[in-house]
Amino acid sequence: MQHKSRIILGIDPGTIIMGYGLIKVQGNHITLLEMGVLQPGKVKDGYKKLQLIFDTVSGLITRYKPDCFAIEAPFFGKNVQSMLKLGRAQGVAIAAAMRHGLEVTEYSPKKVKQSITGNGNAAKEQVMRMLQQILAFQENPKYLDATDALAVAVCHHFQQKTIIPGTGTRAKGWEDFIAKNPGRVRK
Amino acid sequence: MQHKSRIILGIDPGTIIMGYGLIKVQGNHITLLEMGVLQPGKVKDGYKKLQLIFDTVSGLITRYKPDCFAIEAPFFGKNVQSMLKLGRAQGVAIAAAMRHGLEVTEYSPKKVKQSITGNGNAAKEQVMRMLQQILAFQENPKYLDATDALAVAVCHHFQQKTIIPGTGTRAKGWEDFIAKNPGRVRK
Repeated sequence: MQHKSRIILGIDPGTIIMGYGLIKVQGNHITLLEMGVLQPGKVKDGYKKLQLIFDTVSGLITRYKPDCFAIEAPFFGKNVQSMLKLGRAQGVAIAAAMRHGLEVTEYSPKKVKQSITGNGNAAKEQVMRMLQQILAFQENPKYLDATDALAVAVCHHFQQKTIIPGTGTRAKGWEDFIAKNPGRVRK
Repeated sequence: MQHKSRIILGIDPGTIIMGYGLIKVQGNHITLLEMGVLQPGKVKDGYKKLQLIFDTVSGLITRYKPDCFAIEAPFFGKNVQSMLKLGRAQGVAIAAAMRHGLEVTEYSPKKVKQSITGNGNAAKEQVMRMLQQILAFQENPKYLDATDALAVAVCHHFQQKTIIPGTGTRAKGWEDFIAKNPGRVRK
């Protein structure tokens, strides 16, 4: 059976470092297209920071034409000032997606970790190692914001109903997939 | 002497009601083009709210082709949750401006009130009455968010160096303008 492929863009927005990750999903096969970071923290002017985010996200969308856009979004933070800045960074990234008619889905950091590793409190390194397994890559990115963003994209895929290989039945997300496929999980 | 006209779009972003105001400036003559509000608060879905803001601001820019974009931006708020939402609302509005290559300038609510009325703690009604004088309109908008947005646009104009009529000299903002034009100020 041939599945239509989908491309998912995951973003881990931040005002210092922003991670992005793109995956291609065909049936249950997931391929890594690109991951990386941009560093708005290196730009002094607040609007140039936002412009960098908007332009980068717009550029990724134009280049890869993703079908969905998933973003990691914490719902609490240190203080109102940092949350306003984070909200702006999220806002321009979301606007870039909306401009291209992409549906936006957001996940809490806990949900992303839970979805990838089965543990909502997993360390970033654990998330990265699990992604290395799932997406079959060896590189250790300098900034774990890149793998965090990739994790959001993979999480979004897992949250969709997934066809379990060889069974034709659908699993609801990662937890259900693990329950039905214990042999495929690294302990 | 013929001055090139400029159009300024002012936005008072909010997650419940967002005001917008457009003015045309030619020399020291300011004309009201349009003011109004949109009500993201009436939209339940968080992304549809942001989409409404993005689409409305984009639409105003396409229609009036403003030269500058000024936004009122408080730097503190009740709690981190509301600031994140406000930041997102600001972010999509800013992104709509950036998309069209507009320079973005922001003013604190105090700065806007100071600039229009001479008093940083003026009531919204005072700001509205002052704008009715400056822009020669009679209507009392239902939502003062509309006049607040208009105030941001006028504030942005006043913050630019202004040519004092009949003198050819430049005033730096409203305070200086008042100092140099006591007869033009309503006490």
